[in-house]
Amino acid sequence: MSHNSFGHLFRVTTWGESHGPAIGCVIDGCPPLIPLSEADIQGFMDKRKPGQSRFTTQRREPDQVKILSGVMVDDDGVQKTTGTPISLMVENTDQRSKDYSEIKDRFRPGHADFTYNAKYGIRDYRGGGRSSARETAMRVAAGAVARRVLQGVTIRGALVQVGPHKIARENWDWAEVDNNPFFSPDAKAAEFWAEYLDGVRKAGSSVGAVVEVIAEGVPSGWGAPIYGKLDTDIAAAMMSINAVKGVEIGNGFDAASLTGEDNADEIRIDDVGQPMFLTNHSGGVLGGISNGDPLVARFAVKPTSSILTERKSITRQGEEVDVMTKGRHDPCVGIRAVPVGEAMMACVLADHFLRHRGQIG
Amino acid sequence: MSHNSFGHLFRVTTWGESHGPAIGCVIDGCPPLIPLSEADIQGFMDKRKPGQSRFTTQRREPDQVKILSGVMVDDDGVQKTTGTPISLMVENTDQRSKDYSEIKDRFRPGHADFTYNAKYGIRDYRGGGRSSARETAMRVAAGAVARRVLQGVTIRGALVQVGPHKIARENWDWAEVDNNPFFSPDAKAAEFWAEYLDGVRKAGSSVGAVVEVIAEGVPSGWGAPIYGKLDTDIAAAMMSINAVKGVEIGNGFDAASLTGEDNADEIRIDDVGQPMFLTNHSGGVLGGISNGDPLVARFAVKPTSSILTERKSITRQGEEVDVMTKGRHDPCVGIRAVPVGEAMMACVLADHFLRHRGQIG
Amino acid sequence: MSHNSFGHLFRVTTWGESHGPAIGCVIDGCPPLIPLSEADIQGFMDKRKPGQSRFTTQRREPDQVKILSGVMVDDDGVQKTTGTPISLMVENTDQRSKDYSEIKDRFRPGHADFTYNAKYGIRDYRGGGRSSARETAMRVAAGAVARRVLQGVTIRGALVQVGPHKIARENWDWAEVDNNPFFSPDAKAAEFWAEYLDGVRKAGSSVGAVVEVIAEGVPSGWGAPIYGKLDTDIAAAMMSINAVKGVEIGNGFDAASLTGEDNADEIRIDDVGQPMFLTNHSGGVLGGISNGDPLVARFAVKPTSSILTERKSITRQGEEVDVMTKGRHDPCVGIRAVPVGEAMMACVLADHFLRHRGQIG
Amino acid sequence: MSHNSFGHLFRVTTWGESHGPAIGCVIDGCPPLIPLSEADIQGFMDKRKPGQSRFTTQRREPDQVKILSGVMVDDDGVQKTTGTPISLMVENTDQRSKDYSEIKDRFRPGHADFTYNAKYGIRDYRGGGRSSARETAMRVAAGAVARRVLQGVTIRGALVQVGPHKIARENWDWAEVDNNPFFSPDAKAAEFWAEYLDGVRKAGSSVGAVVEVIAEGVPSGWGAPIYGKLDTDIAAAMMSINAVKGVEIGNGFDAASLTGEDNADEIRIDDVGQPMFLTNHSGGVLGGISNGDPLVARFAVKPTSSILTERKSITRQGEEVDVMTKGRHDPCVGIRAVPVGEAMMACVLADHFLRHRGQIG
Repeated sequence: MSHNSFGHLFRVTTWGESHGPAIGCVIDGCPPLIPLSEADIQGFMDKRKPGQSRFTTQRREPDQVKILSGVMVDDDGVQKTTGTPISLMVENTDQRSKDYSEIKDRFRPGHADFTYNAKYGIRDYRGGGRSSARETAMRVAAGAVARRVLQGVTIRGALVQVGPHKIARENWDWAEVDNNPFFSPDAKAAEFWAEYLDGVRKAGSSVGAVVEVIAEGVPSGWGAPIYGKLDTDIAAAMMSINAVKGVEIGNGFDAASLTGEDNADEIRIDDVGQPMFLTNHSGGVLGGISNGDPLVARFAVKPTSSILTERKSITRQGEEVDVMTKGRHDPCVGIRAVPVGEAMMACVLADHFLRHRGQIG
Repeated sequence: MSHNSFGHLFRVTTWGESHGPAIGCVIDGCPPLIPLSEADIQGFMDKRKPGQSRFTTQRREPDQVKILSGVMVDDDGVQKTTGTPISLMVENTDQRSKDYSEIKDRFRPGHADFTYNAKYGIRDYRGGGRSSARETAMRVAAGAVARRVLQGVTIRGALVQVGPHKIARENWDWAEVDNNPFFSPDAKAAEFWAEYLDGVRKAGSSVGAVVEVIAEGVPSGWGAPIYGKLDTDIAAAMMSINAVKGVEIGNGFDAASLTGEDNADEIRIDDVGQPMFLTNHSGGVLGGISNGDPLVARFAVKPTSSILTERKSITRQGEEVDVMTKGRHDPCVGIRAVPVGEAMMACVLADHFLRHRGQIG
Repeated sequence: MSHNSFGHLFRVTTWGESHGPAIGCVIDGCPPLIPLSEADIQGFMDKRKPGQSRFTTQRREPDQVKILSGVMVDDDGVQKTTGTPISLMVENTDQRSKDYSEIKDRFRPGHADFTYNAKYGIRDYRGGGRSSARETAMRVAAGAVARRVLQGVTIRGALVQVGPHKIARENWDWAEVDNNPFFSPDAKAAEFWAEYLDGVRKAGSSVGAVVEVIAEGVPSGWGAPIYGKLDTDIAAAMMSINAVKGVEIGNGFDAASLTGEDNADEIRIDDVGQPMFLTNHSGGVLGGISNGDPLVARFAVKPTSSILTERKSITRQGEEVDVMTKGRHDPCVGIRAVPVGEAMMACVLADHFLRHRGQIG
Repeated sequence: MSHNSFGHLFRVTTWGESHGPAIGCVIDGCPPLIPLSEADIQGFMDKRKPGQSRFTTQRREPDQVKILSGVMVDDDGVQKTTGTPISLMVENTDQRSKDYSEIKDRFRPGHADFTYNAKYGIRDYRGGGRSSARETAMRVAAGAVARRVLQGVTIRGALVQVGPHKIARENWDWAEVDNNPFFSPDAKAAEFWAEYLDGVRKAGSSVGAVVEVIAEGVPSGWGAPIYGKLDTDIAAAMMSINAVKGVEIGNGFDAASLTGEDNADEIRIDDVGQPMFLTNHSGGVLGGISNGDPLVARFAVKPTSSILTERKSITRQGEEVDVMTKGRHDPCVGIRAVPVGEAMMACVLADHFLRHRGQIG
């Protein structure tokens, strides 16, 4: 058991605080002989990196990842995994040596300040410490390694709702996702969101969002009953992301409103003699095991708790205060949650791929 | 790692198939000296038991639980836990020796037939085998033990939506939950659902539902960052229940539409000098750690897949067939998911209570 | 984590007390499609069963194993594993309803009475409760299943020392092991031990023993660095057996006295072009990973603590008493530890086989 | 599950290769508010550090440990643990950029070269890579943290045998352990060993050793049945140390030769009314649970495999070669295993302390 690890055969442990010397992770169980360089990881780090548009925090971190162990240049000159633990580290370079005395003893509403203090009696208040979303950088790094393990699987995420404003499903175009600062698959929604979020940002406010992550190419048979269900692990992985308050698979909450007739995914034999589901209400998983269809997960991200409007709170000493969180914040943390959600999906799938291979061969 | 276990310090492992000789569970790590009799467990089993109203399956099982190990009568004549594994068993008494030849090679749409076969190459087709919701009886049994561990914590569940029909929140009355066959806290909704579900049942159809589970009395400080978050484990626990497709904590998906100002739970000092949250949008958890407010979780249950209308499917041999699932089924499996959801909440909390005590003292 | 489980991908959880209604185990992670009947298991149970000679306890238990879940008759009429948890149970039939008042409050020296009471504040004193060697019956059952998973691997155990009397290594003959009541590979030693143990038994005394377990046919590459070493897991598995006080791999403690030259296992290429170790000082494992040679483990079993001579002790209430343990006991528990040691080796290897396949393919 | 982690509530994960940029570990689950500085750890690192006498490898590494996360200066100005993961790192500074072409394709007998290659198909051959005893530096670092968790427990190790030469037990004096380069509690034995090992070293040979580790101050009640036994975990922890081939608790293998009368630890009430064991044959553990007496463990370390005498071996390509291992090696690796054994004992006890507190309170 470990509070800071997830996965079993592809196991990721993260460590580090927002304003400590570095953050990092250790990936244990990765298969050997997989080509892996820092560049393979860095591309995904850059997608999550802050300061890429006016809609994300202006904190500037290069987030340069280093591989400290677990790889070796093979006889063919290619650096590959050796099957031993892969240690990844990112040094924190933007730790402004500012005065924390104001925040030190105040609990910011919506943040983990109060609960960390309640649990541990001590907390690293600098930039949120361990509870900072900065930790998600290492999830993205681990996810990049997981993708290398998953040959033939494509994992993509998209922002599908910002505040109350959803994309139009009929506009979905994966090619658009990299054309706007929101990872929106709907170009029109992206335009609308830009204007909307400018208003939110200028008001010093924030809004929530919904992210959708889809994995294609997962064969049928991955996952396991009963407590090792693929969707159970996806739900846990997504819910563990900072600020996430809900997770859905396939039809999700809408399934509650449907009849059995409408929710069933009928099956036929396709042109090449393979089973083919006519719909994908299930989101690609039945009884916790993949059915060969795309895995579809969605998660809701709450609005950034750091806002410029004062909120009632208390100090560590039990005095009532009003707290306003200055500093560099995301008006919508859901945006940068997209690559994080992709990474978590990748890690869960890499783990289940190995678990399946272990039991079944 | 175990696909059929959950929890760490309060660890539950279940086994058994729907139509095998018995189902059971082993609870490891339970603290010693806790009074525990079969009657303590049976009351909760009876809440989940099938055949209690016309709205649940007419399968008749007494679901009589036996304690096979882990208890001892103490010097005071009271049977108590000894700290060793508690083995619980329920014999299957309603295994009708019917002809399964029709279902044996057919994949029922929406069920795990296809995926179990894809994964294992063999499956127990009798009544769904391992994938049957019958397994949830052992969750309820384990949950009953977990409740004994959790002194001062009250865990209650309710059905808050059937098909598209939600309760009226202003009607919420816990006292009503046991007055209707739906665990509805809204007496009027229960009346409406009765009529609605009669129609569904007579049509041989089914509908989904939403269950809400609330735990009161959890002190602040339970849970842990980052992958051991209390809400992460609750999400996994609920998502592992048969037919669940979505999980929310607190505001859940609605949080996506809110601003930071509206979603913040402000804090004040109450009359006795204790911290007091003015609202509970968070559902009682911040940064994965309980804040002392009620824990609030909701999950969506899809419509029962077994319906009387034919659906397109295939056989194990790859032939196209139309499948209609006869037999005794729940028109709305969400109803019986209420005690199951309560049990999962209890097990997660018992585990986190012990984990917290281990690290913090 | 679980105190009553071991293994990861082939995971065994045991439950039950010596004098409760039954004992049992749950095996999770077993691959599907492996032929498995109760008879496959029963043969191994019978080897460990008490009362088979005058040198083991006269307690009479048929130790009839039942498979409660995880198997299904396949299309070919053969009962096979389904990949779901295998629940095994043995009912306790020889629970003499005797008067336990004498033992109830007395701590038998050498037994776990004192420590269970110190830890839990309550203990099942009937026949040792959970700490009884009766628990090892379920290890043997699980080991029988593990053997089915391990195609091509032969696991055999032998008693190599009784009290101070060792076998003559040059007499080793596997065929003799089943020809005497000691699992001795040395027929002469068996004769000597028979006389020796008769004396021990008649004196109401007991002696220790050493067991050796050898696994042949394990391919090179199983196991893992650093804390998942094959020999680490074997050591833990053997040390967890009741009364075991030491474990060795290969040369074991004798390696301390050797030079690097003498302890090295030199390597050559054999007639068919395969690597061949010229000696097996390592016991078949290097750096925690199997090298293709036979795995060799030995463990020391302390003398049975239950003896007819009075020993000084105290009561639960803190009074000094002298304790003599009447009843049916093994003069040398090491004998019946042979099939248990084999079973533990089988379980560890089945687990590492699956773990290896998971990571490497 | 993780091959590179051990412990459950006090969980240690190590990473890194002998000649990579750094080695490190992550400690998860450490209680908060424990004073911890780098100096607290460094003292123990220095005990294990190479190059401290002519009897250990002349590799020169400062082994300077850095704390990268998990600590915070508290209001009282003292740096303390925060309850979040503690990341420790030691940079490798003595990675001589030498020519590895000779060793690259040759399997050194007694080393893990052959088996790593067999398992992974690739290996870091530089200095043994992951299988290097350099990894044990991080065990020592973790052990230093574990000691801080264990208030009131004293853990000390000693070398009790070098080659065939044992200490005289009657000479045991803990004060001598730091007065000689062998951690010998017997000053005379140390003198003898110095001369003996000089001969071994000059011959380019090596010898094995036996280490004893004793923990005093452990209260009764730590540990757990059946597979979570304290001695089981100690056995696993010691066996996981490089080159260890055997582990004993208390009387160990000698218990096999004893009678039940002689092996029993009788109990009396001491002057202050507390239970008192008259002997400690058990090594402080009964039924897997501590009895309040000193925990006593011993382990055998095989002779260093790197010797100057040629041994027969093969290359990765399957050619027969003779291999002689030049370079800086320990004539007796058992010496430096003493602080490593202490550290493993500390980590196991810290884990069991927290596990006990979790279940029992």
